[in-house]
Amino acid sequence: MDIPTFQDVLAAHDRIAPYIHRTPVLTSSCLNDLTGAELFFKCENFQKAGAFKARGASNAVFGLSDDQAAKGVATHSSGNHGLSLSYAAGRRGIPCTVVMPRTAPQAKKDAVKGYGGRIVECEPSTSSREAVFAGVLAETGAEFVHPYNDPRVIAGQATCSRELNGQVEGLDAVIAPIGGGGMISGTCLTLATVAPRVKIYAAEPKQADDAARSFRAGHIIADDAPETVADGLKVPLKELTWHFVKNHVTDILTAGEDEIVAAMKLTWTRMKIVMEPSSAVPLATILRNPDTFRGKRVGVIITGGNVDLDKLPWMKG
Amino acid sequence: MDIPTFQDVLAAHDRIAPYIHRTPVLTSSCLNDLTGAELFFKCENFQKAGAFKARGASNAVFGLSDDQAAKGVATHSSGNHGLSLSYAAGRRGIPCTVVMPRTAPQAKKDAVKGYGGRIVECEPSTSSREAVFAGVLAETGAEFVHPYNDPRVIAGQATCSRELNGQVEGLDAVIAPIGGGGMISGTCLTLATVAPRVKIYAAEPKQADDAARSFRAGHIIADDAPETVADGLKVPLKELTWHFVKNHVTDILTAGEDEIVAAMKLTWTRMKIVMEPSSAVPLATILRNPDTFRGKRVGVIITGGNVDLDKLPWMKG
Repeated sequence: MDIPTFQDVLAAHDRIAPYIHRTPVLTSSCLNDLTGAELFFKCENFQKAGAFKARGASNAVFGLSDDQAAKGVATHSSGNHGLSLSYAAGRRGIPCTVVMPRTAPQAKKDAVKGYGGRIVECEPSTSSREAVFAGVLAETGAEFVHPYNDPRVIAGQATCSRELNGQVEGLDAVIAPIGGGGMISGTCLTLATVAPRVKIYAAEPKQADDAARSFRAGHIIADDAPETVADGLKVPLKELTWHFVKNHVTDILTAGEDEIVAAMKLTWTRMKIVMEPSSAVPLATILRNPDTFRGKRVGVIITGGNVDLDKLPWMKG
Repeated sequence: MDIPTFQDVLAAHDRIAPYIHRTPVLTSSCLNDLTGAELFFKCENFQKAGAFKARGASNAVFGLSDDQAAKGVATHSSGNHGLSLSYAAGRRGIPCTVVMPRTAPQAKKDAVKGYGGRIVECEPSTSSREAVFAGVLAETGAEFVHPYNDPRVIAGQATCSRELNGQVEGLDAVIAPIGGGGMISGTCLTLATVAPRVKIYAAEPKQADDAARSFRAGHIIADDAPETVADGLKVPLKELTWHFVKNHVTDILTAGEDEIVAAMKLTWTRMKIVMEPSSAVPLATILRNPDTFRGKRVGVIITGGNVDLDKLPWMKG
């Protein structure tokens, strides 16, 4: 297992700085009053391609040798990682192939194409995806960039909490959503070196609580096709991200679907920012666990803002 | 007519600084590509009480003598000014009465109450509002703070473009929505002194284009109950704001309802910020008039973010 180091984070930050935003940190006196904590929202919804994933994808793309880069990159995420890899490849001017189920929403396909990515469709099953993806790699010789179980990606995501720690003094805790664990792993990687006393919390939908159950069991447990409004958080931990979760995370907190939607709407209403359901899970868990955070200075990572404005979760039908 | 001066703006800025945010300026490479201009969005949707109106209201409230302040303030706006005056009065700890039609949305009433304002209801007619409001003033001795035709309010709104001019170098133009003209008047007041070569554009819904028609006619024309999705922009100019519009504005541009909604959705999608329909009118007019802005550095004032998330204009029903 190739575990990234803090040196890799520093190298990543230098490498990707021209291609990413140093996103702002916002505060809300209303949400501070509601929670009794001091919350500092790191707004990766304002990141390039609309999510923190642009960091890891850019680090992977711009770390390739010219020979490898010429063959391009490939992945099979239909979410923010597919978008971000297309964005980063576009900035470097190299090919990017994204394998997506033919049933994926047209808006997601359009977004990948908008950044210059090429889509190869598969059937909506794991076996089809794996077969089609293997074909793409064989045909193109492209470099596979996994959405999270990749040391280059984790080192890239780790630049987010490095910025946050420089933007806010005296943090007591940082909380981020957990799906595959890329953002949480990057957060652990950075803070273990630059601010080891800061507690790290992961936030997960109760209906997709495989990471929380893994954390309690001491080994990876994968859910079978979980359903949650926080659609970025359905994927399971893998070896690399489990390494960081197991060794550095203080606790994994969960919230119900209604709580997630309420926290999302509260943030839109009060902070006037557009963010994904996944990004609302940390606030939902803070509201559920006030004693854990009261009086603390808490960094809250808003992971992304790519949401379908025609299908907001509080809309009827 | 008591026309505010730039000295009043400086005094206002010192007075209100503890009670308002110095809001950030955001950029979007996507919107720059679309318009061919360099756009700098001054985000007053992140302002206290969710709109630039907190500036003028705070200046009026904190400029009162202790004797006058003890009797409180009053207004009859059911929109952002009513909210902002309640916010400012709450910060000073003095009473605020807002006269609102009994038919106003419950959410607006709740918001005013949430900031500590007292609501006195009237019938939804001008005669009832005027009678009820006169009664409130007689009963309380409160100071009337007009939403825009008030030199204290205009001097307060003028602090916004003073910040913007310090945040962005070399602006060629500034554009803001125009309803009653408070924000545009403040913009004129500041820029005429600190950056007189910057052109000032006002943006208005075609369906409520009384300011554009006034501008062409050379005298104030008031619309009779205009209908537009940009509900903050239905009110007419008054003497004070007409003075600034007439003397300092380069042009007043208009956009249709569909264009306003499209610009609003585009901003939410690309910039990940929540803003009101009124705030989308400037971008809608820039997209309609690309030749006017191409190659220019343009400050765009996003005036507010108070929107009903259950009734977004692109929702059906």
